[in-house]
Amino acid sequence: MDLRTSYQQTTHQLSGHGKRNVGVLQRAFEQADPEQTSDHYGTGEVIEQFEQKLATRLGTEAAVFFPSGTMAQQIALRIWSDKTGNRSVAYHPLCHLEIHEQDGLRQLHHLEPLLIGGADRLMTLEEVKALPDVACLLVELPQRELGGYLPPFDELEAISRHCRDRGIHLHLDGARLFETLPYYEKTAEEVCALFDSVYVSFYKGIGGVAGAILGGPKAFCDEARIWKRRYGGDLIGLYPYITPADYYYELRKDRMGTYYEHAKALATRFNALDGVWTTPDVPVTNMFHLHMNGDAETVSNWIERVQTETGIGITGYVVPHDGHCSTEISVGDAFLDIDTSRLDKLFEVLSHQQ
Amino acid sequence: MDLRTSYQQTTHQLSGHGKRNVGVLQRAFEQADPEQTSDHYGTGEVIEQFEQKLATRLGTEAAVFFPSGTMAQQIALRIWSDKTGNRSVAYHPLCHLEIHEQDGLRQLHHLEPLLIGGADRLMTLEEVKALPDVACLLVELPQRELGGYLPPFDELEAISRHCRDRGIHLHLDGARLFETLPYYEKTAEEVCALFDSVYVSFYKGIGGVAGAILGGPKAFCDEARIWKRRYGGDLIGLYPYITPADYYYELRKDRMGTYYEHAKALATRFNALDGVWTTPDVPVTNMFHLHMNGDAETVSNWIERVQTETGIGITGYVVPHDGHCSTEISVGDAFLDIDTSRLDKLFEVLSHQQ
Repeated sequence: MDLRTSYQQTTHQLSGHGKRNVGVLQRAFEQADPEQTSDHYGTGEVIEQFEQKLATRLGTEAAVFFPSGTMAQQIALRIWSDKTGNRSVAYHPLCHLEIHEQDGLRQLHHLEPLLIGGADRLMTLEEVKALPDVACLLVELPQRELGGYLPPFDELEAISRHCRDRGIHLHLDGARLFETLPYYEKTAEEVCALFDSVYVSFYKGIGGVAGAILGGPKAFCDEARIWKRRYGGDLIGLYPYITPADYYYELRKDRMGTYYEHAKALATRFNALDGVWTTPDVPVTNMFHLHMNGDAETVSNWIERVQTETGIGITGYVVPHDGHCSTEISVGDAFLDIDTSRLDKLFEVLSHQQ
Repeated sequence: MDLRTSYQQTTHQLSGHGKRNVGVLQRAFEQADPEQTSDHYGTGEVIEQFEQKLATRLGTEAAVFFPSGTMAQQIALRIWSDKTGNRSVAYHPLCHLEIHEQDGLRQLHHLEPLLIGGADRLMTLEEVKALPDVACLLVELPQRELGGYLPPFDELEAISRHCRDRGIHLHLDGARLFETLPYYEKTAEEVCALFDSVYVSFYKGIGGVAGAILGGPKAFCDEARIWKRRYGGDLIGLYPYITPADYYYELRKDRMGTYYEHAKALATRFNALDGVWTTPDVPVTNMFHLHMNGDAETVSNWIERVQTETGIGITGYVVPHDGHCSTEISVGDAFLDIDTSRLDKLFEVLSHQQ
C-alpha cells in the first residue's frame, strides 16, 4: 500500500475538516430554500448579502466574491499596477502567484514580480524598506509554504506605515486570515486596516467547497468586477460556492482559537519524538510543517505503518529534503473528533515504530 | 408593476426550464453519493469521466471542463494564436467575446479580432474567403444575438474546407450546439468534425447551473489546462457544476428535437398576430427573436397585461428599436408544462389586448 492510499483509508485525520466529498456541498444546502433565486452574473441577494457581510467583517468599503483566490489576487495586483502606472509588484518567493499559478501574472498581465524574503524565512522590514518603487507589495498571513509563520504585529504595522509613506499599495494574501487572529489577538478588521486590499479563502480553515472574497475600496472593487467578467469568473450563478462558504464560515469562524491551541499542543508532542520536529517550533496558527529524519521511503513506510495500525491519518505525502522529509499539518474539525486515548495511542505507536 | 416583476410572478413561461433557483442544484445532487470524492484541481473521477463522456460525444481527442465559456473560448483563441504566431482572430460582430466579456480577449491576450458578417446577418463563405491571414475563425452555431440563425450545413462544410486549405484554425462557439442537431440532422460528432476546437455550454438548452466543455486535440487540451490554472479556473472542486451539468445533460440531450418543433409552432402563432413577427421567420433551433410594433412603453404594457391575465410569462424585458421592440424566446422544459388550452388562451388574449 502506498502512503496516499493508507491515508485515504484512515478513519480519523490530524488535518482538515474531514473528507472533501459531495456531502460537504449537500450539508450546506440541506436547509437552503429550493425557491431561493440564483445570483445572476454578480447580482442578486445571495451574492450581495455575502459580499456585504464580509466587507463588514474585514472592514473594507466593498467586497467581491470570486470563484478562486488565483483570479482575485492577480486582479488585485493588476488594478494597483494600472493605478500607479508601474508594472512591478513584490512578494515572497513562495507566494502562491509564484509557484502555483503557471505564471499567470506574467502571462496574462505582463507584471514583473520582485521576490522579497527567503525560501526558508519571512520577508523583513529592512527588505521592504530596500524595495525599489513597486505598485504593490503582497504579504501572505500566515506564510503557508513555510509552515505558517507570521511576522509580529508591530512589524506588520511598520511595514504598512512604510508602504503608505512610499505610495506602495499593500495587498493581504489572507487565504488563512481568520486563522491568524487568535495569535495576533486582533479582529479581522484591525489586521485588514493595515492593507489596501485583502483576499480571504473559504476552503482552508473555513472548509467550504471553493471561493474567495476580495475586499477593498469601492472603486477598486468596481474595477475588480470588470476584471472578473474578463476572466470568465463572473458566472451566471456562483451560489454553489457562496452558500457553502457562508454555511461553513458561520460554523467555523469562532473555532480558530480552538484549532490554534490544538496545533500548539500537537506540535509539542511531535517535537518530543526522536528525529522529529516542527516549524514553527511553536505554531502561531492552526498549521505547521512536520519534519522527520530519514529518506522518503523510510519515512513513508513508517507513517504508513502507523496510519494502518492506528487508523489516524497523519499525511498522504512527504516531500524529501537532504536527510529528512516534510509534510503539512493543518488542524481543523477532524482533529476534534479524535479522543484523548486514540491520540495517546498514536504517539505511543509513533515512538515505538520508529 | 414593471415588466420584469410581472414576468417573475407568472406560473408558466414560454422560455427556459423553470426558475433558476437553488432547487436546480439540489435536484441534481439528490441522488448523488455523499461519499463521492470531490474532483481535485482538474483530476479525479467526477471530472475525468465527464470530460471523457463529452470528448466521445463531440468526437474530439480530449475535453476540458471549465467554469465558463468566456474562459474556455478566450483560451482556445489564445492557443491557436500562439501556435500560428499570428495575433489576429476573426469572429462575428455579435460574438460573445466582442459584446459580453468587457474586452477580455484584448485586455488579457492582446489579440486583434477582425469582425466578419453583419449586425443583422451571418457571415458568408465569400467573407471568409476574403479574410486576411488569421490564426483562428470563430463560428457560433446558432448565432444567438441574431435570434438563432444557422448557415446551411454545406456552407459550413465549405467554410471548414476553406479554412483547412488556408491554415486557419476553426473554432466552434457551440454554446447551443446540441440545439442545432435536429435542424442539421447531424450528430454532434459530425458537426464538430468540421472544427479544430469546440466549446459547449451546460446551462443553455441543457439547463445546468453553469460550466462549459472545451474539446479538441490532446495537445490543445493539455495547453488549455495550463491556461485554466493561469486564469484561476482550475478550482479545487468543480463538481458543484459538473454533477448538475451531467444530470441535466442526460435529462435533456434527447429533447432538443421536441424544443425545436415547439419553437417552430410557437413562431407560427406569433407571426399570425398583427404587428408581430419573428426572426428567423421559421426557427432552426429552439430559439427565435420576437419583434412587436410599438415603442418600449406600449409593448411593455401590453406584455405585462397579458402576463398578468394569463399567468404565462413571455419575457421580462424588451429592447427598443426604431418603431418596434424585440425580445428572445428560447423553448425548453417550461414550455412543455403549458397545456394546449392555456396556450390557446395566451394567443387569444394577445390578439385581443393589442
